[in-house]
Formats: sequence, C-alpha cells, structure tokens
Amino acid sequence: MSLLSVGTVAFDTIETPTGKADMVIGGAATYISWAASYLTRPTQIVSIIGDDFPNEELEALNARGVDTSGILCVEGGKSFYWAGKYHDNMIGRDTLVTDLNVLADFDPVLPEAYKSSEYLMLGNLTPDIQRSVIQQMTVKPKVVALDTMDFWMNIAWDSLMETIKLVDILIINDEEARQMSGHHSLVRAANHILTLGPRYLVIKKGEHGALLFGDGRVFFAPGLPLLDVIDPTGAGDTFAGGFMGHIARTGDLSFENMRRGIIYGSVMASFCVEAFGLTRLKTVTDDDIESRYAEFKELVHF
Amino acid sequence: MSLLSVGTVAFDTIETPTGKADMVIGGAATYISWAASYLTRPTQIVSIIGDDFPNEELEALNARGVDTSGILCVEGGKSFYWAGKYHDNMIGRDTLVTDLNVLADFDPVLPEAYKSSEYLMLGNLTPDIQRSVIQQMTVKPKVVALDTMDFWMNIAWDSLMETIKLVDILIINDEEARQMSGHHSLVRAANHILTLGPRYLVIKKGEHGALLFGDGRVFFAPGLPLLDVIDPTGAGDTFAGGFMGHIARTGDLSFENMRRGIIYGSVMASFCVEAFGLTRLKTVTDDDIESRYAEFKELVHF
Repeated sequence: MSLLSVGTVAFDTIETPTGKADMVIGGAATYISWAASYLTRPTQIVSIIGDDFPNEELEALNARGVDTSGILCVEGGKSFYWAGKYHDNMIGRDTLVTDLNVLADFDPVLPEAYKSSEYLMLGNLTPDIQRSVIQQMTVKPKVVALDTMDFWMNIAWDSLMETIKLVDILIINDEEARQMSGHHSLVRAANHILTLGPRYLVIKKGEHGALLFGDGRVFFAPGLPLLDVIDPTGAGDTFAGGFMGHIARTGDLSFENMRRGIIYGSVMASFCVEAFGLTRLKTVTDDDIESRYAEFKELVHF
Repeated sequence: MSLLSVGTVAFDTIETPTGKADMVIGGAATYISWAASYLTRPTQIVSIIGDDFPNEELEALNARGVDTSGILCVEGGKSFYWAGKYHDNMIGRDTLVTDLNVLADFDPVLPEAYKSSEYLMLGNLTPDIQRSVIQQMTVKPKVVALDTMDFWMNIAWDSLMETIKLVDILIINDEEARQMSGHHSLVRAANHILTLGPRYLVIKKGEHGALLFGDGRVFFAPGLPLLDVIDPTGAGDTFAGGFMGHIARTGDLSFENMRRGIIYGSVMASFCVEAFGLTRLKTVTDDDIESRYAEFKELVHF
C-alpha cells in the first residue's frame, strides 16, 4: 500500500570519531524512503532539490520502487546542505553548516496521484508545511506519522500543536518528548503527549532503543549492540522509514503489529549506522533484514 | 541453594530531586540480600557494622531467611556512612560524605558454615578483600559473581585483575566496562573483558537496562519505564541480588536461565527505585514479582 514521504533530500558532510564523509547524499526523506523501500512498494517522495543533485541518486531510488517525480528540481538552485561533527560518544553533535538553499522556498504541492496515499510519513520540516501536506490529502490517510524537533518547539509551538492534532503517530526523541511535555519521566511525558492528538507515540532513544506508547500499552525495542557505530546520521529517519514501511505493507494497525514495525525500524537503523551516509542501507538484502530481525528476538526474548 | 553475599552494610543519606532521606539503611550486601531473599533461601551475609546499627534491621533480614551471624559488630564502632546527592537526571550523583568507620578495618573471616556456600556474590569492596573471600572457600562455589567500580581500577588495577581471574560472572556498569577494556563499544568491551577471566559479563546501564554477554551470545533487558524514579540508590546491588537469587534457586547456569535471572534482577531493581532506601523492597510480595516479570515480557516480546 502506498507510502508518501515528505522531507528533505540533501547533501551532508559528516565527521565522526571514526572518519569523515564529504558531501554525501542525505536528508530525512532520502533515509525514510531507502529504509521503507525494503519493506513496501510503491513509495513516493515529495521534496525539493537543486540541479546540483546527482540524477543517478534519483534513479537508484526509482530502481527500488520509489517514485521521485514529486521531488521538485529548481534549475540553477542548490540542494539543502548540512555539515556536522559528532562528539566522542557518537550521541552529541555540533552542527557546523546549515545551508537551506532551495529548501528556504519549499512549499510542497502534492501531485494529484499522491493525494490518496494511504500512509503519510512527514519528516522533520516546519509544522506549517507538514500541516499543509496533510490538508492537501483528498482521501484521509490510514496513518499520518510525523517527526519534529526542538527547534520547532522553540519557534513555532502553536503551529506544531495545531499540526500534531492531525497526526496518528508522533515520532520524536527522548529529549524532545521531555521538552514537549515538561516531564522528565518518559512515561509521564507519553501520557501527556497522547492527550495532544496522536494515538501513538514513538520515543527514539538513539543507541538505547525506542519506546512505543498507545492503547494504554508500552513496547520497547533496544538498539542492537554493534561492534562499531560508524555514523549515526539518518538513523532516526531510517528507523521511521522501516517502521512505516512495515505498517504500510501490512496495513495492520494493531499494537501487536506495531511492535513488529518498531523492530523493523530498529533493524533498518542498525544497518544505517554501520557506514557513512547511505552506504550500508543501499546494499541491504531481504535476508540481511530477516536475519537481523531474528537477532533482535534472540536479544530480548526470555 | 545457599547464597553468600559479602559487602557493605551501612547508613546512607540520600538527596534526589524528589526529596531527601536521612541516615537510612543501605550498603551493597543489604540490597543484595533483600533482593535475593525473595527468590532463594538460605542466604548469608558477611559484613561489618558498628554498634550504632539497629538490631531490628538484622532481625528483619533474619525473618526473610537471611543469616546475619557473619556480620561482625564492632563494639563502640560506627557503621559505614555514605551521603550523596543526585543530579536532576537521576543518573549522575555527587558523593558528599564517605565515612568508612569500621569498614576501614574490614578483614572478613568466613564462618566455617559459609565456606561451602554454592553461590558467592561479592559486592563492591577492595579487590584484595574480594580475593581473600574467594580463597577462604573450602568448596569451590558453583558461581562466583563480583561487582567492582572505577575507583579500584584507578588505584588497585593489578589486584583487581588477579581477582577477576577467579570469577565466573563480572557485574559492572557501562562506564566501568569502557574503562576496564579501553573500548567505547560495549560489544568490543565485552569481548575484551571476557578474555580476562569471567565466563559471563553483565553490563548495567542504569535506567537503560542491562546486557548479558557470554557463550558467544548477548541478551538485553530494558529498564522498566516507570511513572517516577524516586531514588536510584542500591538499584545496581538489588539487580545483582535478584539475578543471583534466581541463579541460586534454580542452580541452572544455561544461557536461557541466565536471561531469566537478568529479568528477575531488573524486576527487583524496578521496585528498589520506587522509594527511598529499602522502603519499597521491604514490602514486595511474590505476586508483585511475578506480575512485574510478566510486565517485562509484555514490554519486549514481539
């Protein structure tokens, strides 16, 4: 069943304690779509790029069943660019450069064919844009999921609150959940946030895993203990893509199936961090995914 | 099957963002024994106290099947005293007072009856003392488990290395595992530490759960998401007590059973943090334990 992702498609320059990658392909919608592409088809992207963006990267997505015709290419424009440097613990990071470029004028107009997508994943963007996308859908999606960040809580709180009222699943990290709710306890934070609109809340805890709250229940998936984490960039978006990819392919919104979605998200994120940028994600096989899914079961079942 | 715990029995003054507890009963052996007492009998403690220690606290332990005749009471002496204050995140803490008092001269001599205990849990103490206890055992225990801390790595590295060679299960936290191994990755840290003697390594990650490494396998148990954490003091020792209590009652060292031990440890720790000091641990029932064990299954199974 069709999954529409809206978000950035970008260049990243990434420095971690293990190395550096210059001007590699990044962006929330890119990671979401690559991850989801292993689980469901078709998927679609709505985004904006400059004509500096390599065509073969779009073709690689097309080859995975991702429709990129909703990506607006601005002639003479430059793609969104982010550069950052991770701290030694691979958790904290400093942003060195944020060049919005064509993203500054991003005002997505959904192609007619996308307006009836059944699953909608809104990557981190201004809440105004996220809400405008939801409002353009002519058929109410079965699931609208949304990611956001502290930045929008600081400068666009009212718009964000208006937007998340329209959302089924909110996907944020632990610090964002604390900021949004004013509670340190993630259980209290979740109880509060679930009164703001979303039916389910996913709290990402980076290497420490992810929590799913909803229907009065809680599910937890750990991060897979890895020999090495090379680059955490995009792990959260990859998680969201794997999660929504599983939800879209099954069309099953039961809590039991959402648990499996959280695990598929964690599986895809565990691949993502094993190399810089999209390197590892691009070479994943179905066998890799199922074998790592089994590894998660072995890790936590008792 | 008999479980012998060796460690501190103490007074603690604890300040957390939620409140303060003055001169409450604490100490590693106390928490270990309370937790283990719900899972196995008999257990024994070897420790040292001053005559300021309330007799009714020993009687409360006796009532739970804990033999306290191995606790040396020094006439006119004062019990070990620790005071600390937790940071807002309830993870970091500052030690405000450490009065060793009678602990400064602790040189445990095992009662004859304890020398054939099948399970030995060595709480955090100088590695010299921990080794001397192991060497006093006349029958090799089925399992020797040991906790330690960064302090001993800094000032008694050689003695610690000599001691952990004699140990079956090492139980330390994530930062200690990183320091001991020189690796940031916990998988690399575990691979290294398992070459130093222990057959199994448990890495405690506080609110983020615990990992068990050994037999080329990994198991992970999360921390239970709680509405509120009131006081984390003793949670690590309580975890160790629940874990070893389960191992001792089952006598089963298979990896499958050790997984269940890790969960029982996590269950007991989840009670421990719900109130200051031993308050909650003292009122736990068998039903509470089994119902929380089921809660862990519901939390992670998929």
